[in-house]
Amino acid sequence: MVSFECDYIAGAHPEILKRLAETNMESLPGYGMDHYTASAKEKIKAACGCPEAEVEFLVGGTQTNSVIISTMLRDWEGVIAAESGHVSVHESGAVEFTGHKVLQLPAKDGKLEVDTVRKYLENFYNDATHDHMVFPGMVYVSHPTEPGTLYTKAELEDLSDLCHEYIIPLYLDGARLGYGLMSNASDMTLEDIARLTDVFYIGGTKVGALCGEAVVFTKNNRPHNFMTSVKKRGALLAKGRLLGIQFDTLFTDDLYFKISRHAIDMAERVKEIIRKKGWQVYMDSPTNQQLILMTDEEMAELGKTIIFDRWGIYDDTHTIVRIATSWSTTEEDMAVLAEA
Amino acid sequence: MVSFECDYIAGAHPEILKRLAETNMESLPGYGMDHYTASAKEKIKAACGCPEAEVEFLVGGTQTNSVIISTMLRDWEGVIAAESGHVSVHESGAVEFTGHKVLQLPAKDGKLEVDTVRKYLENFYNDATHDHMVFPGMVYVSHPTEPGTLYTKAELEDLSDLCHEYIIPLYLDGARLGYGLMSNASDMTLEDIARLTDVFYIGGTKVGALCGEAVVFTKNNRPHNFMTSVKKRGALLAKGRLLGIQFDTLFTDDLYFKISRHAIDMAERVKEIIRKKGWQVYMDSPTNQQLILMTDEEMAELGKTIIFDRWGIYDDTHTIVRIATSWSTTEEDMAVLAEA
Amino acid sequence: MVSFECDYIAGAHPEILKRLAETNMESLPGYGMDHYTASAKEKIKAACGCPEAEVEFLVGGTQTNSVIISTMLRDWEGVIAAESGHVSVHESGAVEFTGHKVLQLPAKDGKLEVDTVRKYLENFYNDATHDHMVFPGMVYVSHPTEPGTLYTKAELEDLSDLCHEYIIPLYLDGARLGYGLMSNASDMTLEDIARLTDVFYIGGTKVGALCGEAVVFTKNNRPHNFMTSVKKRGALLAKGRLLGIQFDTLFTDDLYFKISRHAIDMAERVKEIIRKKGWQVYMDSPTNQQLILMTDEEMAELGKTIIFDRWGIYDDTHTIVRIATSWSTTEEDMAVLAEA
Amino acid sequence: MVSFECDYIAGAHPEILKRLAETNMESLPGYGMDHYTASAKEKIKAACGCPEAEVEFLVGGTQTNSVIISTMLRDWEGVIAAESGHVSVHESGAVEFTGHKVLQLPAKDGKLEVDTVRKYLENFYNDATHDHMVFPGMVYVSHPTEPGTLYTKAELEDLSDLCHEYIIPLYLDGARLGYGLMSNASDMTLEDIARLTDVFYIGGTKVGALCGEAVVFTKNNRPHNFMTSVKKRGALLAKGRLLGIQFDTLFTDDLYFKISRHAIDMAERVKEIIRKKGWQVYMDSPTNQQLILMTDEEMAELGKTIIFDRWGIYDDTHTIVRIATSWSTTEEDMAVLAEA
Repeated sequence: MVSFECDYIAGAHPEILKRLAETNMESLPGYGMDHYTASAKEKIKAACGCPEAEVEFLVGGTQTNSVIISTMLRDWEGVIAAESGHVSVHESGAVEFTGHKVLQLPAKDGKLEVDTVRKYLENFYNDATHDHMVFPGMVYVSHPTEPGTLYTKAELEDLSDLCHEYIIPLYLDGARLGYGLMSNASDMTLEDIARLTDVFYIGGTKVGALCGEAVVFTKNNRPHNFMTSVKKRGALLAKGRLLGIQFDTLFTDDLYFKISRHAIDMAERVKEIIRKKGWQVYMDSPTNQQLILMTDEEMAELGKTIIFDRWGIYDDTHTIVRIATSWSTTEEDMAVLAEA
Repeated sequence: MVSFECDYIAGAHPEILKRLAETNMESLPGYGMDHYTASAKEKIKAACGCPEAEVEFLVGGTQTNSVIISTMLRDWEGVIAAESGHVSVHESGAVEFTGHKVLQLPAKDGKLEVDTVRKYLENFYNDATHDHMVFPGMVYVSHPTEPGTLYTKAELEDLSDLCHEYIIPLYLDGARLGYGLMSNASDMTLEDIARLTDVFYIGGTKVGALCGEAVVFTKNNRPHNFMTSVKKRGALLAKGRLLGIQFDTLFTDDLYFKISRHAIDMAERVKEIIRKKGWQVYMDSPTNQQLILMTDEEMAELGKTIIFDRWGIYDDTHTIVRIATSWSTTEEDMAVLAEA
Repeated sequence: MVSFECDYIAGAHPEILKRLAETNMESLPGYGMDHYTASAKEKIKAACGCPEAEVEFLVGGTQTNSVIISTMLRDWEGVIAAESGHVSVHESGAVEFTGHKVLQLPAKDGKLEVDTVRKYLENFYNDATHDHMVFPGMVYVSHPTEPGTLYTKAELEDLSDLCHEYIIPLYLDGARLGYGLMSNASDMTLEDIARLTDVFYIGGTKVGALCGEAVVFTKNNRPHNFMTSVKKRGALLAKGRLLGIQFDTLFTDDLYFKISRHAIDMAERVKEIIRKKGWQVYMDSPTNQQLILMTDEEMAELGKTIIFDRWGIYDDTHTIVRIATSWSTTEEDMAVLAEA
Repeated sequence: MVSFECDYIAGAHPEILKRLAETNMESLPGYGMDHYTASAKEKIKAACGCPEAEVEFLVGGTQTNSVIISTMLRDWEGVIAAESGHVSVHESGAVEFTGHKVLQLPAKDGKLEVDTVRKYLENFYNDATHDHMVFPGMVYVSHPTEPGTLYTKAELEDLSDLCHEYIIPLYLDGARLGYGLMSNASDMTLEDIARLTDVFYIGGTKVGALCGEAVVFTKNNRPHNFMTSVKKRGALLAKGRLLGIQFDTLFTDDLYFKISRHAIDMAERVKEIIRKKGWQVYMDSPTNQQLILMTDEEMAELGKTIIFDRWGIYDDTHTIVRIATSWSTTEEDMAVLAEA
């Protein structure tokens, strides 16, 4: 059996394990005060072309969304997100646990459209009863989105402009950011992301790390006493080195980008296999996840040699199957899939 | 100027003020331990035909929704509600403040349809990732709904059956319950409501009281140590007599139903006036609120003698105007409206 | 039986009921937007000698503490309070419900001593690990305190200076403020309170109102979008008139102060009765509550004609009994007590 | 410079890194569904002599305390803890963030005394106003405690009996459990801990892991839908393998106990060095942390070659210095300390 189930089926990129081993017996201070963490922050700031940015490391994606959203929103605010967004659907209500509402808007192919958001904001402020409602205090987007699509630079610029017009931060969830940036369809660089958003995170868990997400506050806007707020949420890692060393490795010699590109190359070959097999594409994706509409018989057949994700039920006889590549996908995996 | 702005423009029904004055100097214990509160509970249980019910009084509607929902949901659960429901839109995120998500579903004329809810529940439990989602742990309906419509007995039975099939409580927000029960279109009694729901509240604030809502737990299901949970939420009134005496009065000699019926009679006359004037009904309502689609010129004209609620913006030149009657609407008010 | 159980055994001062009745049928906007509420605010600002103050009305004491503390603290902060403070002991964890810790310090006769607070603040900032702790973000005092004692002006000045030195607000819980201000032992006026604190509330529930507390933000420091935060906590009263009219009445012709003084006069006579009877004073109180240490036999005997509060268990054979007077205490009550 | 700053200055025990590397490219399911996690759970259950236990892995100590306490308490409850307990002082209010109060009691040498707890529980239930207070719903102890002391078996039995008498769970924070169990002074085994508590955790972060704590629910009492509640708190690790493989390694061939014993051996030698140097012991500790009372000059001198923790300020001229050993302390470290 070969797994294309998701992009976190393997451990860490071997270079990361190597660095963890090399540095293992060094005595280092905890809570991110070590020099590897400092180095990782510098490298990320450089990669973002944003020397004034503030970088912080957290352990996982839901934790990061919950910490960022709840420390940046004010008491009376909620966060705008796509109905299909990770914070809307797949975080067990982690944002609401912090006392804030997710203001869910319809989305197209996983993407929030600027007109939808603008209309919502206008209606909110035109509504005479809005003091009895939740104020929209942030816009959340995932890039790549949950189904694997990408915002264009023009789309992100529009959202960014709109947010600045309404003086609310634009937050980009980059759990799979590497796969987005290295996609053939991408017209954005990491520097563009840093410029257009107020805060975003660079996903490690799904892009080669054992765990870890790098949050980048791009506009001198890291919440005050952030470490204490992180601790209060049970999210402060004692051995911060674990995060620092991993990201220091990922941002040395462009490793993060190289392994992301590898996943995209593999994904392009998956798309070719899909075409050859005549499977029906459910939603065209330029990133590392391919959604295929299969009859339940086809799915059962595929399941004999391949582990995949059942992304959704389409109807009584069809399922949407997700095939994900990652930094760890091998030639052997591809060969098995081609035969499946 | 005459006001049809909402159903809480006046103080209390005079009979309530009279009873407050008569009992004013009696020494009574606090926190709802007084005999008037006890008497009010008995009268409400009798009116519900539900002797085993447990009745508790709270101060306002949003408070009641927040207290009930957050004390009845379990940690991993959220509450299903119509997108247009009060808890979804007009409570500033009070449910989310308690750490729980409102699972918003599309509704028709303000009503949750049983098929929509059933589909949602089925999809949830069929979704292999549902442990990463918010479990649906309650269904919330408003009756009358926010735009003034009513569930039929058959509809409420269907929702009740569905909830019991999934072993989750059905909660009915009766902020305007009297106006619903006394509507010409109603095919339900208070006893039906008590039988079909697991918990509901009988609105006082909008039906003749200065403040106060009576929560009825119909199935021996009042949360354990409820008084402490109420106190924890800042919702325990020291002088519980204020709530007890008001509801004791409202449920003496059918006062609650009589004054509700008065509002409906007035509403029927409002509908006649609307017909005569040829105004366009936005949504037909059998209760005390009438929604009218007006040009902004018509609205400005009406605004010269009448205070009303601007319920929503329809388009650039039209507004949805709400005319609400209540227990306090007078013949004089009607005359002014007819002339407007 | 005559009750000295607490200061909220009766309804409202008759003048309040009269005003509620007189204004009952006026059409007024909700949520505190009515002119009585506006008038009450002006009168309170004048009484405070603080024209720039912002005044808001809430329903009860625990609610007020919870709303004020949670809207004024920042994410990483908690509130310093006496171990015996109402927020520490008798609010079912309402502050913690909002996600903030009460930092409880030892107190003397119910009062926080400035040296205790100073030491705590110094130690906190000297502690190298304080980022892992809860930052002290406010000081809470009750005046009168829970056992009925009073801060002197010098003591409150010291606390005020200390708070300003550390740039944290001083919040005064005035649930029984009238009884404190009218005490023979008081060396402070309402203007002093307004000057020395950053926010405080004037208790209505225990001083003649059916319900209601008037919050005074004295330093142009009302939290932004306060109405929405109040709504979010289920604390926004629809018929704000109920609070506005009550406080407008209480602050007309010094009614609040006159009825408070009456309670103090009655308390002084209670103290005389205590002396004559030779009962043992548990803690000397200059306000409306007297704490008496009684053998359980004495207590049983007293309980034949008087209702009182069992304030605390002293040992296996003694109980601390509380006798509270209030605006509603009568000559007849005093006569019965003298005979008891 | 040699560090005795804390017990998490190094990475992971080399055997753990080796196993992470060996298993790195295996495709494994996420969220703790992998076979290494399953194996780790079985080994821990066996080590606890508690086959019916349920074991769950979390990332860090504060997170674990917050998740366990908030999922096991009921709405109206708080947790009893020593004033000096980690949840009371050093978690930035993480328990309060979940809406629950820490009920702090005086402790002796870091330990809750059964009489103190019993008195508190008795007083609570004897207090007629306890519905207005926070119900004590759990007892939290740390073992070893924060200053490094240990409960005796008799003491833990007494606390256990008391908890069961009041039907509330006893929760033991074992962040440094290995160092406690392997102490010369310990009269308890892991089986005793499992038998006497209702839930406890075996610390990994401070005992050889990169991160990770193993929670053991000993009485068939894992909260329902625990994974969802963990996710809701942002505490669910995607690559659960990271925790599973580490604990599987630690509980293979008694590694956890062996490395804990090593730290104790080193600590005994630290005590000898302290004696020889004539330093003043601040609190005698049988575990891996030694607290020494030093003049600030002595401390400055020591600081030239040794990194240590400034545990507390004693007075204007003395500081309490903490010397911690761990699994990673070497002979070379000991030699430097002896020379210091």
